[in-house]
Amino acid sequence: MIDATDTRPGPTVECRIVAVDGGNARVRYDRLATEEPLEIRLRASNARKTVAITMRTPGNDFELAAGFLYNEGVLSGIEALRGMSYCLASDVEPDQQYNVVNVDIAGEALPALGALERHFTTTSACGVCGKADLEALRVRGVATLDDGFAVDAATIAALPERSRAAQPLFATTGGLHAAALFDEAGDVLAVREDVGRHNALDKLVGWALLNRKLPLANRIVLVSGRASYELVQKALAARVPVLCAVSAPSSLAVDLARAFGITLVGFVRGERFNVYAHERRVRQAARM
Amino acid sequence: MIDATDTRPGPTVECRIVAVDGGNARVRYDRLATEEPLEIRLRASNARKTVAITMRTPGNDFELAAGFLYNEGVLSGIEALRGMSYCLASDVEPDQQYNVVNVDIAGEALPALGALERHFTTTSACGVCGKADLEALRVRGVATLDDGFAVDAATIAALPERSRAAQPLFATTGGLHAAALFDEAGDVLAVREDVGRHNALDKLVGWALLNRKLPLANRIVLVSGRASYELVQKALAARVPVLCAVSAPSSLAVDLARAFGITLVGFVRGERFNVYAHERRVRQAARM
Repeated sequence: MIDATDTRPGPTVECRIVAVDGGNARVRYDRLATEEPLEIRLRASNARKTVAITMRTPGNDFELAAGFLYNEGVLSGIEALRGMSYCLASDVEPDQQYNVVNVDIAGEALPALGALERHFTTTSACGVCGKADLEALRVRGVATLDDGFAVDAATIAALPERSRAAQPLFATTGGLHAAALFDEAGDVLAVREDVGRHNALDKLVGWALLNRKLPLANRIVLVSGRASYELVQKALAARVPVLCAVSAPSSLAVDLARAFGITLVGFVRGERFNVYAHERRVRQAARM
Repeated sequence: MIDATDTRPGPTVECRIVAVDGGNARVRYDRLATEEPLEIRLRASNARKTVAITMRTPGNDFELAAGFLYNEGVLSGIEALRGMSYCLASDVEPDQQYNVVNVDIAGEALPALGALERHFTTTSACGVCGKADLEALRVRGVATLDDGFAVDAATIAALPERSRAAQPLFATTGGLHAAALFDEAGDVLAVREDVGRHNALDKLVGWALLNRKLPLANRIVLVSGRASYELVQKALAARVPVLCAVSAPSSLAVDLARAFGITLVGFVRGERFNVYAHERRVRQAARM
């Protein structure tokens, strides 16, 4: 039975995009995978602790919490499980109540948490959440990008091929993520590769930092996979005005890009790509 | 100048595989992306703290450490950086020395760590490392999988299409990872999707746990992306004998699968795939 006040986010959300194909551009409505934080709280009769916060797609949240704890060796089996519930406590903002799962386990004390032990020291209030994070960035004084930088659609379409040509490890293994930095003409300035998508972008920004090239004004970054919230957050830290991804962005990635003035491009394939935020920096799309 | 005692791992490693194509199989040597942990230690003149451990591909480690700290808002700029070095301290095992980076910053105290604050409470000894983790699993009493389960090459080749047919969200968004569970005939038992690859597998194992279907003996799991160390670790926890990935595995994923008896398959595309560990469970490859 669904409560009328249910604020649960669905697994996908609708999103206005500008679809570019060669010199043409048109507004379309597309569906994105929802990305929202999930906080997992473990509760025994005399102890409780937040053991993980993960960015996830809503749906099957109890399975996610139970499976995560089982795979980490914290939950020994279903016998140890007393129940699971969303956290509808008054200290949780209504729009975050379905982003917190309480896992009740048998016994008075919490089990050994292994590698999770060091991750969270205190029982945080339902803390991290997508919207709160956007607010936190504003509070930290992160300024919106409002430059006049712009690129041609043809420049964006050419990025994946130029990036691949500069990826020695991917060619060898087929198993690495890449982050590539380009100037406004689409010429490669640096490419970094890693098994972790976040690491590839951290390496690229680290290269820029160590070579005194920050902030990355008038630059374009291409990432090889999907654009998550965390990747947009890193691009924002480095002040990248245009972030492109070979694959799809998540809902929260689009929210963050829109809130802070980043042009977010996805599905760059052949002559086509989609612009999810601030199309003003893509010359063909800006005419819409 | 490279020291003769340099134990630094390269960005790729050679790996024996069995390449299957339809009914044929042959041994080949392929290159994998190296996956190793990197511990980032922040040091001021009067304080030090491990602020992150990330699974990464070795190379550009100082860029990774600097970029990570900058993107997290911990490092304000290059002026705050006094130096970076590998941790060659005596408390670090020789083969892990290049997996620990010390970042020396100006000032007596550590800066505000923001969201990183809660992740690591104590200055750990150079702690987490790939090889130590494999040992830790043995110490925890994780048993090797040594069942007689086996599947046909044709069954494995058919998994991606069967998984996609059962992924409603991917069809809508093109932006989700999936983990799918199959019986030995290749029939889908459950599929879970998520923006996070780990979450998809956690949801799947959680489904099995809540439906009292653990351990997953005589079952096959397919993940949509690459096979990392963490995914193999989760498969091991659920006792999955055959783990298949649409894309490449990392070096540490192969090490873990080999050490604990998991059949690890990658690059499942059309009639072709590669077996990286324990080919005895793939009938055509077992004849090699």
